[in-house]
Amino acid sequence: MVEEGSVGAGEDLGPEELEAALHQVAAWAASYRRTVASLPVLARVQPGAVRDALPHEPPPHGDSVERWLEDLDRIILPGITHWHHPGFLAYFGITGSGPGILAETITAALNVNGMLWKTCPALTELEQVMVGWYARALGLPGDWFGMITDTASTSTLVALTAAREAAGVDVREEGLSGIRPLVLYCSEEAHSSVEKAAVVLGLGRRYVRRIPTDERFRMKADALDHALREDRHEGRLPFAVVATVGTTSATAVDPVPAIVEVCRRHGVWLHVDAAYAGSAAVAEEFRWALDGCQEADSLVANPHKWLFTPIDCSVLFTARPEAFRRAFSLVPEYLRTDVTGVVDLMDYSFQLGRRFRALKLWFVFRHFGLEGLKEAVRRHVRLARTFASRVDEHPAFERLAPVPFSVVCFRVRPPGVNDETALERFNLALLERVNARGEAYLSHTKLKGKVCLRVAVGNLATRERHLERTFELLCEEAGLQ
Amino acid sequence: MVEEGSVGAGEDLGPEELEAALHQVAAWAASYRRTVASLPVLARVQPGAVRDALPHEPPPHGDSVERWLEDLDRIILPGITHWHHPGFLAYFGITGSGPGILAETITAALNVNGMLWKTCPALTELEQVMVGWYARALGLPGDWFGMITDTASTSTLVALTAAREAAGVDVREEGLSGIRPLVLYCSEEAHSSVEKAAVVLGLGRRYVRRIPTDERFRMKADALDHALREDRHEGRLPFAVVATVGTTSATAVDPVPAIVEVCRRHGVWLHVDAAYAGSAAVAEEFRWALDGCQEADSLVANPHKWLFTPIDCSVLFTARPEAFRRAFSLVPEYLRTDVTGVVDLMDYSFQLGRRFRALKLWFVFRHFGLEGLKEAVRRHVRLARTFASRVDEHPAFERLAPVPFSVVCFRVRPPGVNDETALERFNLALLERVNARGEAYLSHTKLKGKVCLRVAVGNLATRERHLERTFELLCEEAGLQ
Repeated sequence: MVEEGSVGAGEDLGPEELEAALHQVAAWAASYRRTVASLPVLARVQPGAVRDALPHEPPPHGDSVERWLEDLDRIILPGITHWHHPGFLAYFGITGSGPGILAETITAALNVNGMLWKTCPALTELEQVMVGWYARALGLPGDWFGMITDTASTSTLVALTAAREAAGVDVREEGLSGIRPLVLYCSEEAHSSVEKAAVVLGLGRRYVRRIPTDERFRMKADALDHALREDRHEGRLPFAVVATVGTTSATAVDPVPAIVEVCRRHGVWLHVDAAYAGSAAVAEEFRWALDGCQEADSLVANPHKWLFTPIDCSVLFTARPEAFRRAFSLVPEYLRTDVTGVVDLMDYSFQLGRRFRALKLWFVFRHFGLEGLKEAVRRHVRLARTFASRVDEHPAFERLAPVPFSVVCFRVRPPGVNDETALERFNLALLERVNARGEAYLSHTKLKGKVCLRVAVGNLATRERHLERTFELLCEEAGLQ
Repeated sequence: MVEEGSVGAGEDLGPEELEAALHQVAAWAASYRRTVASLPVLARVQPGAVRDALPHEPPPHGDSVERWLEDLDRIILPGITHWHHPGFLAYFGITGSGPGILAETITAALNVNGMLWKTCPALTELEQVMVGWYARALGLPGDWFGMITDTASTSTLVALTAAREAAGVDVREEGLSGIRPLVLYCSEEAHSSVEKAAVVLGLGRRYVRRIPTDERFRMKADALDHALREDRHEGRLPFAVVATVGTTSATAVDPVPAIVEVCRRHGVWLHVDAAYAGSAAVAEEFRWALDGCQEADSLVANPHKWLFTPIDCSVLFTARPEAFRRAFSLVPEYLRTDVTGVVDLMDYSFQLGRRFRALKLWFVFRHFGLEGLKEAVRRHVRLARTFASRVDEHPAFERLAPVPFSVVCFRVRPPGVNDETALERFNLALLERVNARGEAYLSHTKLKGKVCLRVAVGNLATRERHLERTFELLCEEAGLQ
């Protein structure tokens, strides 16, 4: 028998060793925080460089924490694109935070699995309470059911599985074979995760209707209504609409109140993808973005996008938890318990294992408080709008979308570059040159066929001067004054 | 303009504050490690107790780390079922480890999203190298493609989506409606996640064939062959078989070499669920468990189950990455990059966001080394077999399954309790009484209709004396000597 506390092959770090090593990691994390702004935001490694610096085979024997941290700095860090850099303005700029880091450390130390209430009551109940806090913070119904998933892709897939079950064609037991096609609706600006969910669900991409948008990239409710009528007329079965609050390209907000009416008229499920912009509603002046969402059947918003919670943390709300249970609940003998009258979260999703993600959301709320969250969101929007003003004021810049939140879509039109093809080439090349400078990282998209550059503010450390510098870099690389 | 470094509403902890707070959390984690064995393993809170101890509304203003940690101890800890307790012997006993905790802290501090190679080359490449290390450690093909997902449920769902796409009936574009039913096969002992995947995929539970098992709970390959023939004969389309290496109830190993032959004969995809037992193959004497798996199309094994990696970390291997790409790749403009010839992991799954999970697997390999991992797995199997000997030697205990790994299935047959109904009632009541003592937590299952108790060893801190004590508790509560 191996005695407790003896350290040898196959033994974990003891408590003292763990504490000492966590002190080293604490110093590492603080140093990373202090220096990240001076690192190139976009990794400069060549493909394969990180891979080739690592051994092909796992080590036969262990080595010490000091060595891992050395290798982290030497091999891994040069290959990191720093999402934590204040100049990270690509995609949706996201940001973790100190409280989130502390909570993730504790989550790993506890290492519980909340698949059932009994296997960790505190996980299940804190998750329910945090979902309620988040709903109240956004002005959504505080009594909505909710759960935390890894990503909005998963949340949307789970929601649409429930929606399909609610369509009255027993897909769970009988499958889709032999029934008329089920049809899903979203705007042409909806996120690719909607189409991927349709693939997984077996609907087929040809039964995903991408509804046209207006000049501000918002779904046309009348076109949605028309599409639903047509499909129904032709014998297909419309079952769900996905509205977007904050589209990925232009952060447009679909007209949810009008979409709610269309959905009611046709009896289809409304799922709202508010992954990015949902969190903006912590501040009263952005609450309009969720108008009508109280009437949705399900809604996803991601604290890991704009609520300073480390990835991954997506919240899936629903007014109809029973539809989720009907779709997913399936309890084999080995998961039965003697506890009744509690929520077993495994009954509402296809994922069984459940990490203690609620802890980080709790610590984030505890650190910032609602007022702090509002202030951070407001700061980000202010920064984006100041950048938009610069774009608007410069004759060689063209803004391509409104700025309801913290994302600016624009392009540069230098003198003499006029046709669309040339503009596209110019702007994509400009993007690569600016990103290569290492001080800012922007991404791009297309809106109504026009390539545009995107500045997306989401990092807690981003300040006015980072956006000023970004504008300067754009001018320099575009050869403008 | 708010100046950098100023602390106020909506500001993160500064680097010094973060470092100091991480020191507090380090002390908390070490203390948790020292005391967890003295806590009741199964939470004793009543349903609602944690919820009711928390405010209904989020706080308007933040407070300090000290207060969060106080509330963690006061409100959350009593509601924790301690998976980290050495007496946690339920489900699959899992265990995190010090290196995993350190890595999760760093993962949260970096907070990168590896959806594309470009958005974090080091994440993508370390993930590929770690998947290769894990494959080599298990004796699987080192050149298999692989990726890390959250749970085996997700891995199996993703694999079966690829399998469906490989069946030659363009489900991605056309959907399942209007084509003949696709049929999925697994044993009657397969995990519920297989059936849940069938629900999500739109196959329908009636097209999941639960193939009978032999007296050792292993899928009967001839029955599988028969079922495939029958479905094909009747015009249905068999597309995938899920074999299990280490079933959830009895850790039985399906005869994969024979199943491979059946799958080849019928041209169907073979996915292997080795979530628990796959990791045992780090030790040569358990490598038999993966015999034939080299010929599988995909395989899932979970480092968060038996490789000392904090939840969540599931590895999905495949010999056919192109089928995954065909099923999932869908690149909207806003995710296009200028980099070619690299792996963008978003192309192989429905999940877009990707946490830096590879880091913890790296640190685990670095701490234990292959020899340490072998030693830990061997120790767990030794402990389980010693417990099984006690069961075998006691006249009132009955072992109900072989013990190929670290799980023992048994029941108590006290004098005078004979019929199955009475035995079931007795053993379930015994289970609750033993669990209520707080020193051990066991779960149960059914095998061939008989309720059995399960002792599942998987925690790094579990020693001989914890299993001795568990046996004593069973005897005491059963009224035996």
